[in-house]
Amino acid sequence: MKPTPLIRRFLLAACLLLPAAATLTHASTLSKAVRTSESMEPALSFPEQEQAAAKRLADLRVRFGQPPNIVWLVIDDMGWGDPGAYGGGAAIGAATPNIDRLAGEGLTLTSTYSQPTCTPTRSAILTGRLPVRTGLTRPILAGDTLAKNPWADEISLPKLLGEAGYTTVLTGKWHVGEAEGMRPQDIGFDEYYGYYPAQKELSQAFDKRRYPDLVLNPERLAMLRATGASEALIHGFKGGETTEVSQIRSIEDMAEADRVLTDFTVAKIAELAKADKPFFLEHAFMKVHADNFPSKAFEGKSGSKYAYKDAVVEVDAYIGEIVQALADAGVLENTFVFITSDNGPQLDAWPDSGYTPFRGAKASAWEGGVRVPGIAYWQGTIAPGRQSDELFDLMDLFNTALALAGASDSIPTDRYIDGIDQTAFLLADDGRSRREKVYIWSEQDLMAMRMYEYKIHLKVVQTQAQWLDIDMTTVSDVGIAPWLFNLYIDPKEEYPVGHRMNAWLASMAAELKAHAATFKKYPPKDIGLGQ
Amino acid sequence: MKPTPLIRRFLLAACLLLPAAATLTHASTLSKAVRTSESMEPALSFPEQEQAAAKRLADLRVRFGQPPNIVWLVIDDMGWGDPGAYGGGAAIGAATPNIDRLAGEGLTLTSTYSQPTCTPTRSAILTGRLPVRTGLTRPILAGDTLAKNPWADEISLPKLLGEAGYTTVLTGKWHVGEAEGMRPQDIGFDEYYGYYPAQKELSQAFDKRRYPDLVLNPERLAMLRATGASEALIHGFKGGETTEVSQIRSIEDMAEADRVLTDFTVAKIAELAKADKPFFLEHAFMKVHADNFPSKAFEGKSGSKYAYKDAVVEVDAYIGEIVQALADAGVLENTFVFITSDNGPQLDAWPDSGYTPFRGAKASAWEGGVRVPGIAYWQGTIAPGRQSDELFDLMDLFNTALALAGASDSIPTDRYIDGIDQTAFLLADDGRSRREKVYIWSEQDLMAMRMYEYKIHLKVVQTQAQWLDIDMTTVSDVGIAPWLFNLYIDPKEEYPVGHRMNAWLASMAAELKAHAATFKKYPPKDIGLGQ
Repeated sequence: MKPTPLIRRFLLAACLLLPAAATLTHASTLSKAVRTSESMEPALSFPEQEQAAAKRLADLRVRFGQPPNIVWLVIDDMGWGDPGAYGGGAAIGAATPNIDRLAGEGLTLTSTYSQPTCTPTRSAILTGRLPVRTGLTRPILAGDTLAKNPWADEISLPKLLGEAGYTTVLTGKWHVGEAEGMRPQDIGFDEYYGYYPAQKELSQAFDKRRYPDLVLNPERLAMLRATGASEALIHGFKGGETTEVSQIRSIEDMAEADRVLTDFTVAKIAELAKADKPFFLEHAFMKVHADNFPSKAFEGKSGSKYAYKDAVVEVDAYIGEIVQALADAGVLENTFVFITSDNGPQLDAWPDSGYTPFRGAKASAWEGGVRVPGIAYWQGTIAPGRQSDELFDLMDLFNTALALAGASDSIPTDRYIDGIDQTAFLLADDGRSRREKVYIWSEQDLMAMRMYEYKIHLKVVQTQAQWLDIDMTTVSDVGIAPWLFNLYIDPKEEYPVGHRMNAWLASMAAELKAHAATFKKYPPKDIGLGQ
Repeated sequence: MKPTPLIRRFLLAACLLLPAAATLTHASTLSKAVRTSESMEPALSFPEQEQAAAKRLADLRVRFGQPPNIVWLVIDDMGWGDPGAYGGGAAIGAATPNIDRLAGEGLTLTSTYSQPTCTPTRSAILTGRLPVRTGLTRPILAGDTLAKNPWADEISLPKLLGEAGYTTVLTGKWHVGEAEGMRPQDIGFDEYYGYYPAQKELSQAFDKRRYPDLVLNPERLAMLRATGASEALIHGFKGGETTEVSQIRSIEDMAEADRVLTDFTVAKIAELAKADKPFFLEHAFMKVHADNFPSKAFEGKSGSKYAYKDAVVEVDAYIGEIVQALADAGVLENTFVFITSDNGPQLDAWPDSGYTPFRGAKASAWEGGVRVPGIAYWQGTIAPGRQSDELFDLMDLFNTALALAGASDSIPTDRYIDGIDQTAFLLADDGRSRREKVYIWSEQDLMAMRMYEYKIHLKVVQTQAQWLDIDMTTVSDVGIAPWLFNLYIDPKEEYPVGHRMNAWLASMAAELKAHAATFKKYPPKDIGLGQ
């Protein structure tokens, strides 16, 4: 895929939105964000909160003598509505007391955005770059052969944090490439302990009740295994050895995977806390991605008793254990913790799937697909009980982590960075988001943009089946009336208002055009995952 | 309407649900509720929590020398999802800090059920009886003439509380009959200060932009006024005078109605607290029922700026004022406060309407129509931070209020009472709900039943228009496959499971049959609102 057709494709869509061609030359009327560099995403500016946050960080630096630890807890496929803090929890049969406590004692973000699927989100938060820029535009599947290694010319967060003096560890799911050169230990992490693929990639080879046509057919099973997809628990070190600790050989093994991973992380925290260096730890849970199998200790422990719900209860308990490990190691007050999910619930796996109150689900650009829980917790530094509905893109974690590490200067300037430093938003007591817009891409398509409480769609995914979501969907260009929604009065994206109030159409189209323009100087990368 | 056809109608529906006629004779397998009296709704029994709650009440009685005050705060047409404590709030453009604080310091009920519309809910909570039993099965509209006064042979909660030594006051919206004999001051309240109808009943005579065919046509306006619908702020006393304090003459007057009502309630609390008697105060807000007009002090005060959202912010502020008045009067620790809404959001008034994450809206038997916020707050008596997803029907407020007053013995035994005493559920630290089932009626139709996390539909309301809700709907009998939903794994009622797991069909049908049987000895009442 070459850049030119791509840009032409969504520039055309953007132009169609304009009430008249003449308005293309209008100044932007809704936007207050400022572009300070050709290669950086424009951002809002709040000097006072920047000063407040900087002072807070400086005081901590004096107190602890080193920059803060950074811990990300990434749940797989959990819906926005699943945690109790977001209106779910016990009300939908799976209480989440640990997540809720951290939300109550930290900052609950109600407008956090992921990419629509797994691989895109996981690579975007480690590069600060949209999937269309890195080429990782969709999940890598068993048997995929890539035209090139997307990581070969990407600069990852763990690499930069390592250079800034951090020890960097990834525990758990990877799913951003299994070949040498694409593994966590190859792209910057000092240590990796986990499973390369998602749970379903593994369980489809074992679960004869769900996948009899594969599991009960030896020839086909051999064909799957011939793709080389790993079923191993991997332990790898940067520049060192990579070993297979054990193998997932049954759904019983799969059921205990997160127990194994959490034990590793808990022990690792105790070890890392003793060292003289700060650490960056990303713990990526296998659960609650379909297929979920009840861990023995958690079977039937949710109100609902369904596997997905037990998995939510299990992950919630492990989050409690991991945060307790930070407390036990005495580093809680110098550790920034962020809890999130990599995309919306996978509804086509129902009932083995999560809950979103919004329209759509995983793989769609509707709120259900890309709006996820986002909780920032930092004992003593982030004021308890904060809530904000302002915009946060998970890619902002890239810039924010580097700012916390005092390494913002290491952010590459030879490529476009879509993340924004949100340190002050998260840390200052009344911090405002510096992000004005979230661009929502699906594979090679720019689907939608959220700007303040407005969301405009250029293309929409519509489900053909009654209640499935990924299955049986089609992507359509929108019609003559702009699909513009006001998410405050219409959180479910049901009632378009663009044709009723056209005040922002030219302004939003100008933002889409400016976004398109970034691809002229910085062309998208094609690694062979495109259509 | 005679009882026989009604019973036949839903018995027929109940029987159709059964897998085979033979199972009609099966013992109920899912139900654990016990019927202790022919005229009382069966309930679950938890002796320990009953003792814990009784002891707590007895201690308070010793401390304060009188039973507790009871304050209900009823918001009009607010959706389950509107308060921040239920996943809304600032996230949807209208922060609710006061409601959220009371939820956090009290008991947040996530499965509280109202009737689908206004008049039915308001009469049910004052009688403990389903609307089909009192005849008040739908909102009373301008020009309605009733065949008989439904209150003539009903025994209201304020009447019983008055006999138990309480002063009883209703402030705000009534909408359960304006004729003499049907007014609050006629049916048991010592004092009434408020407006008989809903906001829209008033504003349709003033808002020429919304209703030009009525407002700008003098003849039609005269016809409306001839129905005798009151536009007055009424001040009435039991057995005493009823006066008209002022008149709503404009949308500006309407905008300030809740300010006027809250001022009354705040002053009244100070007065009531000085007396030697406990009090029962129901404060029924006019807002946030369409049509909402911004009060001057609250115009644009919400994040969203829309009239509905400003109204939410306004009501939230008034709730803060009313609870503060209880604190200022020194009675907070001897006052039971319950905050709720009378039904789901009225989506056909959009964008002047609220938010529910669930399917359907006001007037439907889907969760969106009947699941409402329910917050029980009692400083020092209800433990802070409690949440429960167990069932609470707003009719339970009837029995619970009488239990708090020590007047449970006054509950009539010559008629069927659908409410259940939930005192121990609300007061004991780990209280369980005594309610196993909620029967959901719409006008003369038994539509659905919730039992634990299951919900079964006998008839469904389906919207014909794309996004309207009351308008353009039809009621349909369900088809051959039972519409049974598991609300834990499917909060939006999208994926019926009755034909996949039929374990409970016979059991639930038996419960429907038992419910139907209550109408044999206690026939429904027809007051002329039926079809």
